[in-house]
Amino acid sequence: MLKVPEHQVAGHIAKDGKPGPLVDDKGRFFKPLQGDSRGEIEVKFYESFSSNTEVPDHIRRYFPVYHGTQAVEGSDGAAMIVLENLLSKYSKPSVMDVKMGSRTWYPEASEEYIQKCLRKDARSTTVSSGFRISGFEVYDHKELSFWKPDRKLLNGIKVDGARLALRKFVSSNTLSDTSSKPDSAFASSVYGGSRGVLTQLLELKTWFENQTFYHFNSCSILIIYENESIHEDGARAQVKLVDFAHVHDGNGVIDHNFLGGLCSFINFVRDILQSSDESTDN
Amino acid sequence: MLKVPEHQVAGHIAKDGKPGPLVDDKGRFFKPLQGDSRGEIEVKFYESFSSNTEVPDHIRRYFPVYHGTQAVEGSDGAAMIVLENLLSKYSKPSVMDVKMGSRTWYPEASEEYIQKCLRKDARSTTVSSGFRISGFEVYDHKELSFWKPDRKLLNGIKVDGARLALRKFVSSNTLSDTSSKPDSAFASSVYGGSRGVLTQLLELKTWFENQTFYHFNSCSILIIYENESIHEDGARAQVKLVDFAHVHDGNGVIDHNFLGGLCSFINFVRDILQSSDESTDN
Repeated sequence: MLKVPEHQVAGHIAKDGKPGPLVDDKGRFFKPLQGDSRGEIEVKFYESFSSNTEVPDHIRRYFPVYHGTQAVEGSDGAAMIVLENLLSKYSKPSVMDVKMGSRTWYPEASEEYIQKCLRKDARSTTVSSGFRISGFEVYDHKELSFWKPDRKLLNGIKVDGARLALRKFVSSNTLSDTSSKPDSAFASSVYGGSRGVLTQLLELKTWFENQTFYHFNSCSILIIYENESIHEDGARAQVKLVDFAHVHDGNGVIDHNFLGGLCSFINFVRDILQSSDESTDN
Repeated sequence: MLKVPEHQVAGHIAKDGKPGPLVDDKGRFFKPLQGDSRGEIEVKFYESFSSNTEVPDHIRRYFPVYHGTQAVEGSDGAAMIVLENLLSKYSKPSVMDVKMGSRTWYPEASEEYIQKCLRKDARSTTVSSGFRISGFEVYDHKELSFWKPDRKLLNGIKVDGARLALRKFVSSNTLSDTSSKPDSAFASSVYGGSRGVLTQLLELKTWFENQTFYHFNSCSILIIYENESIHEDGARAQVKLVDFAHVHDGNGVIDHNFLGGLCSFINFVRDILQSSDESTDN
């Protein structure tokens, strides 16, 4: 009944005998509890967040629904966090994972962890742009198949590479072909409009300008849209926050690290929308 | 004709034979060119900024007016940047210097410089709060004199210390007396109102959400207000950006590091305004 998810673009997978995430046919996603304090912190966050009455409903919908924890048979009885499967209602989803913030470490971490994060942050676009694209999978409308660039390749991309990836993510022409320019055919239906990605990001931004409950260190924004019915029913674009293994108490200070990166990411998305408007006009 | 400025709260001073900043009686401020690339970068910034027609006038007023560079006699002919003296029209100014951003280093810097900045950033409120108070001088209405805490003391303050300093900065009771709670008597006239600090910070924020010309690494916001006539003419509060020795080209990316810190600082100021409203109501 449980199976390996089809469209996971980032995060931990089954390796070296450790279980990976699983999904069932009832729209639930099972995420293995990470052994050290990370699993504990993530459960603590979900427990706190799901019972925090000061989080408004229009913000709550940007987070996966939490169904508690459960020992899962067939995975050696490993403890798992049970969440909403964000992709269960999509048949041909394009998915992107964007790790937010201009740093992924936090002051309380060990010196070794900080230095490891710093190196990764400087090599990627984290320091320069306030976010990094840590994984994506796009449905290729020409090849009728999914295209998923290598994760290591993604880690090394610079600002121009991030811009290009954000264009490819909403393009209809062949993606593995590096000679053709991405056409950004779906930019306005995915990024734009009253239910598009930009509108959702701006709503999140307003909350982040005020909320001082949580600091979302090393947390990702997941962007999802549907390709099968994109021409008829629209893109059904969704923005979701995921990965809370390093969330800390805000102690009355806003999460300026996440917020700064979010504002930068908003500008990247807005740039693509504006330039695709211009190309439509010509 | 040139003399040492009376109310400098942060930045370099005359030391070891090197000249410090000077002021004249015509409202000009002479800032020694720092010997290495920093002086060069600061001049380059002022030249670029003062000729950048895409900077709107309502934003330009948050920067000191630039009058070019000049060799100054009496300081061994040292080259100096000539700026508007921001304090020349104030007789009893309170001044605060707030270094912005959750990091003061930048990727292109040397490994040694980065590690030095990181240590300072982690010790201060830079990493935790996205800014640090690097100097302030307040006019004490009880003692009829200026009170200026030691700079080293300021470097070690944590989040609660920063909150307290921002309250003391707008209080009328004796400041050196640690037993009395700051009364925040001037909070609404300095931080609040249509010409107060908060309004000015919000205007800057809007610009920083869009501008991709400059990354203001290690730059400060200076807050100034007048004490002499505060009960009659108001506080004449001013917000200014200063110190551009580490400004870099934005390369099409917003300054998410400055912006995140600015949003956090705005929240600190707003908190004080809201709690001083409450105490007035009681």
